Amino acid sequence: MNVCIIGVGYWGPNLVRNFLSCSLVDLVYCYDKDSEKLNSIKQKFPSVVLINSWDELLDDKSITAVAIATPVSTHYDLAKQCLLADKHVLLEKPMAHSYQEAIELTELAKSKQLILLIDHIFIYTSAVQKMKELVNSGEIGEINYFDSTRINLGLFQHDVNVIWDLAPHDLSIMLYLMDKHPVAVFATGVDHLNNGLEDIAYLTLYFEDKTIAHFHLSWISPVKVRKMIVGGSKKMIVYDDMMSDEKIKIYDKGFDVLDEEVKNECLVQYRIGDIHVPTLLNSEALTIEVNHFIDCCVNGSQPMTCGAQGALVVKILEAAQESIKVNQKVSL
Amino acid sequence: MNVCIIGVGYWGPNLVRNFLSCSLVDLVYCYDKDSEKLNSIKQKFPSVVLINSWDELLDDKSITAVAIATPVSTHYDLAKQCLLADKHVLLEKPMAHSYQEAIELTELAKSKQLILLIDHIFIYTSAVQKMKELVNSGEIGEINYFDSTRINLGLFQHDVNVIWDLAPHDLSIMLYLMDKHPVAVFATGVDHLNNGLEDIAYLTLYFEDKTIAHFHLSWISPVKVRKMIVGGSKKMIVYDDMMSDEKIKIYDKGFDVLDEEVKNECLVQYRIGDIHVPTLLNSEALTIEVNHFIDCCVNGSQPMTCGAQGALVVKILEAAQESIKVNQKVSL
Amino acid sequence: MNVCIIGVGYWGPNLVRNFLSCSLVDLVYCYDKDSEKLNSIKQKFPSVVLINSWDELLDDKSITAVAIATPVSTHYDLAKQCLLADKHVLLEKPMAHSYQEAIELTELAKSKQLILLIDHIFIYTSAVQKMKELVNSGEIGEINYFDSTRINLGLFQHDVNVIWDLAPHDLSIMLYLMDKHPVAVFATGVDHLNNGLEDIAYLTLYFEDKTIAHFHLSWISPVKVRKMIVGGSKKMIVYDDMMSDEKIKIYDKGFDVLDEEVKNECLVQYRIGDIHVPTLLNSEALTIEVNHFIDCCVNGSQPMTCGAQGALVVKILEAAQESIKVNQKVSL
Amino acid sequence: MNVCIIGVGYWGPNLVRNFLSCSLVDLVYCYDKDSEKLNSIKQKFPSVVLINSWDELLDDKSITAVAIATPVSTHYDLAKQCLLADKHVLLEKPMAHSYQEAIELTELAKSKQLILLIDHIFIYTSAVQKMKELVNSGEIGEINYFDSTRINLGLFQHDVNVIWDLAPHDLSIMLYLMDKHPVAVFATGVDHLNNGLEDIAYLTLYFEDKTIAHFHLSWISPVKVRKMIVGGSKKMIVYDDMMSDEKIKIYDKGFDVLDEEVKNECLVQYRIGDIHVPTLLNSEALTIEVNHFIDCCVNGSQPMTCGAQGALVVKILEAAQESIKVNQKVSL
Repeated sequence: MNVCIIGVGYWGPNLVRNFLSCSLVDLVYCYDKDSEKLNSIKQKFPSVVLINSWDELLDDKSITAVAIATPVSTHYDLAKQCLLADKHVLLEKPMAHSYQEAIELTELAKSKQLILLIDHIFIYTSAVQKMKELVNSGEIGEINYFDSTRINLGLFQHDVNVIWDLAPHDLSIMLYLMDKHPVAVFATGVDHLNNGLEDIAYLTLYFEDKTIAHFHLSWISPVKVRKMIVGGSKKMIVYDDMMSDEKIKIYDKGFDVLDEEVKNECLVQYRIGDIHVPTLLNSEALTIEVNHFIDCCVNGSQPMTCGAQGALVVKILEAAQESIKVNQKVSL
Repeated sequence: MNVCIIGVGYWGPNLVRNFLSCSLVDLVYCYDKDSEKLNSIKQKFPSVVLINSWDELLDDKSITAVAIATPVSTHYDLAKQCLLADKHVLLEKPMAHSYQEAIELTELAKSKQLILLIDHIFIYTSAVQKMKELVNSGEIGEINYFDSTRINLGLFQHDVNVIWDLAPHDLSIMLYLMDKHPVAVFATGVDHLNNGLEDIAYLTLYFEDKTIAHFHLSWISPVKVRKMIVGGSKKMIVYDDMMSDEKIKIYDKGFDVLDEEVKNECLVQYRIGDIHVPTLLNSEALTIEVNHFIDCCVNGSQPMTCGAQGALVVKILEAAQESIKVNQKVSL
Repeated sequence: MNVCIIGVGYWGPNLVRNFLSCSLVDLVYCYDKDSEKLNSIKQKFPSVVLINSWDELLDDKSITAVAIATPVSTHYDLAKQCLLADKHVLLEKPMAHSYQEAIELTELAKSKQLILLIDHIFIYTSAVQKMKELVNSGEIGEINYFDSTRINLGLFQHDVNVIWDLAPHDLSIMLYLMDKHPVAVFATGVDHLNNGLEDIAYLTLYFEDKTIAHFHLSWISPVKVRKMIVGGSKKMIVYDDMMSDEKIKIYDKGFDVLDEEVKNECLVQYRIGDIHVPTLLNSEALTIEVNHFIDCCVNGSQPMTCGAQGALVVKILEAAQESIKVNQKVSL
Repeated sequence: MNVCIIGVGYWGPNLVRNFLSCSLVDLVYCYDKDSEKLNSIKQKFPSVVLINSWDELLDDKSITAVAIATPVSTHYDLAKQCLLADKHVLLEKPMAHSYQEAIELTELAKSKQLILLIDHIFIYTSAVQKMKELVNSGEIGEINYFDSTRINLGLFQHDVNVIWDLAPHDLSIMLYLMDKHPVAVFATGVDHLNNGLEDIAYLTLYFEDKTIAHFHLSWISPVKVRKMIVGGSKKMIVYDDMMSDEKIKIYDKGFDVLDEEVKNECLVQYRIGDIHVPTLLNSEALTIEVNHFIDCCVNGSQPMTCGAQGALVVKILEAAQESIKVNQKVSL
């Protein structure tokens, strides 16, 4: 099986490295509009094969899969062409600029029985997998709330705001952990550069029941924080991605509503138990994702981060953007 | 000068202890509807004088000041009666249940030339005083944003929700540090006990310019966090009240918008400089507040946490409550 | 039962407060050579009874127990007189200036069937009790090493060096956790004030087997650290007393020596498992200790921190002092 | 200029990568007894030139410098042959198994006017350079003590004990920061595997004045710590290498001895001032070291980590080993 990496700027080289060490992959091709970047990738990974024209890439039937790591604005168009040319696609997040485009890609892949995997990379970390396991086992109970902070004095992007840049990570994790979908979103954000691209933003997601999810996103924080709290009815998880060890802590803490009769005395009883810190495998998420992609291509199985989930993320991003504009809650 | 502490349950004993060690105070009286609590305070502080009837307290002209530490619902009524009886008032926060009542108290105190100090205790900490000094000196520059988190697996209150319980702390600090007032608020919150009292809530405050302030409040968090970020145009402050040392860290970090001409290349330039951790005096905030109150009573000077500020806090709380109800931004 | 607290300067008031709230104690007496301190304790705790002469204290048969919180140099003499006067004794640590004196007190108490409890207060914390439980249950395995750090920019003492001031805490904990006794000690220390009182010191304790224990003690550290590692053959404990939560962390980590045959390949196999953070009761150690003392007095049972253990601590302190002097390992 | 990397197992590839990106280096050669490792390095870095025989390497006059990253036991012999063959040498630490050998290499390099740089890599970190700057400027004052902890559940080595494995880092930093040399060493250590290789060890270094330096080294700790305290008479530094930010904290803390006359009252006065956290450049130490080496080769200047310093490190290691054996302080 031959794979072509499209776009070898910032993230592409990581894809190249991982596909190169994938035993099921024969040849790794690279394509980039910028020939300087193409030459540079060849120097770093001499075994890659360079492709110099887009049509050549589409026409080459030996290339059965591509990985697209180009700017967001090009995702829809490039992915569509590749799918139409019968190639499996691993697509960078966010998968498109609009929900409509995202759905179109998803349906195109489905109708052509091709794999479309969205690069929601955190899903492939052992931390998120451990959280999923804890949720699935029932150990956490019902999820009452989800609170996420992803802030840094970061790389201002030129084409997307802080929501489109950072929120896909947190939204994909939330959707992966929860078995219910949000029904509305409210968002606030400010662009301190007056360029229409928010650098700080807050998102609130509403569900049909009393679940609530909240996201703090910023490029202008003095400290780097990547932290989530998953508040379950039985236990609570704190996921701190900045820790080298102890990324996941499970708190046997919570509260119970007491029976009516005692209510006048004290409505609530607290449970304060032990903390458990599970060992996590120290594996590279992208390695697992790339192997999973190849596996899906070979076996025709559904990816963990499929187009439908990627489209749902885009739907929320779009609604959040609309909410900032109209200054109101927006239904999903 | 004689002072009477009204309400000696949870917080009252701290007021008693501090007024007792105040050199300008002659006698410390105590009043509580609950005679058991009154006896208990006498046992702990034998030098206090107990008052057994409310009218006796109002009529006693030798008592020129009171400190009210009763449930929120009683604040307005008790404070009003004390002011009408020509007594200076130190009043627990939040000062009232509505902005109208808060303003009425403030104006009553003004018209009678009495001191009305609201117990926004954090204003009297050396941490907040240090931040005020940094803001006033211009070292921080313009405040771009204010982000606050005050969460814990905490004491569910029976009479107020998490906003009325915790937000007065953060709102009073924000108002004290900023020289501009918010113009609107959006709030979200959920009551997991189905009793109409939210246990988790998020507040966003809007200003006339691009400043933004955000508050995360919770009684149902597995971890205790009391952290604020003050994002200035020149420097940024992180105030972590859970640290025994290093409560205040000043980051010489920020970003500058580049001139038009370079804009195509790179819109933003980052400044990453040193961190400074100032030494803070290890003083008890309530001691400073009580002495400040006595000082204001004696000299007729305006308290740092006057009725007007307390009323503004209540105005925001009221609007936040309304916002949750109508599910929309509410103007202030 | 009546108790007299002897010495009401720095630590004495805590003893007074705790004995006052002890239901089995009828009257709490206080004695101090300094009448100013005596008056001050009466003001703070009006229900105490002051004793103005030492002989009066000894002669008063109604006082069946004393708690001695005076400078180290007076411990032996005061405790001896109290024991001879048939009073149970709770004695501040270190219990004496020499092992000989410590043993004499221990034997005197034994021969008179009186309780002698040494105030090794950390033994009564829930953290140390939890560690003891973990060691006893076999969960930790054999203790391979014990490493302790107790440093701060602290209160230079005028009568004892940093070893006599701080090491009793760590030595008492170590002796309580281990079922074997050290056989030699090596110590190093420096007095930067040139007054013969070391302000920084390192102690190494040797055992008959390969167990090793090490102590870092300092009054001149910029940071406050109170941390111990207990390295077991099955699991390891880190005890960080500066944490408000998570004082005790149990690491399912270790190493196994492989069989001879595989040895050439790899001598050691690591075990890296989960971390467990047990909930600890938030009780005041001194309250538990005082109640335990009263209990021992009433029931004639042996205290958890008896004279023999206190004497062993003194023996090690004495040997450490000698080691610094002669610059060599000293046998115990 | 052509360079040959000798030994391309664990550390060698990092040397290869850095020499390859060095503009003054023309060709990078590689040599290893293990041809599998040689082939593997060629695959990873296709532009390197492989050398298959040791004699070929020595004879090739175009190779004017080598970097040796082989096991400790081979350092002396390989380095000597390379120096005799007129090649500059970058040598892995510790540079030899004995002080005598280390001195011989140093003198050989000197007599042949060749560069001998020992790979004490921490000297090239921005953290250590910042500390050196602080010490040199006089801001820290006289160094009173140096306390270092380098512990982990680590890689048991098969040829050297934990002292020879880890202490070279800390000793080289200490020697670099201090302008005085230790005069004696006491060391303790235990080999829990009974193989003669200590896995936990404590070193104390003595100076002619009251300075003291202490090192805690371990392969069997449940937590990874790499922390140093440099206690100066004016300020103190804490260097925590495990922090991603804030590696260096400068504490304006200390103590002053008061004049004789006040001595009876209080011997010591504490200074508790602010903490300063300088920004550090985020550069790779090995890159700086490799460029420094090339620079020294070209200009004939003395390396920052020369043979003499490397030899002093070995001298202390040797004495520490002796101290464990004879169970006594050993003079240097």
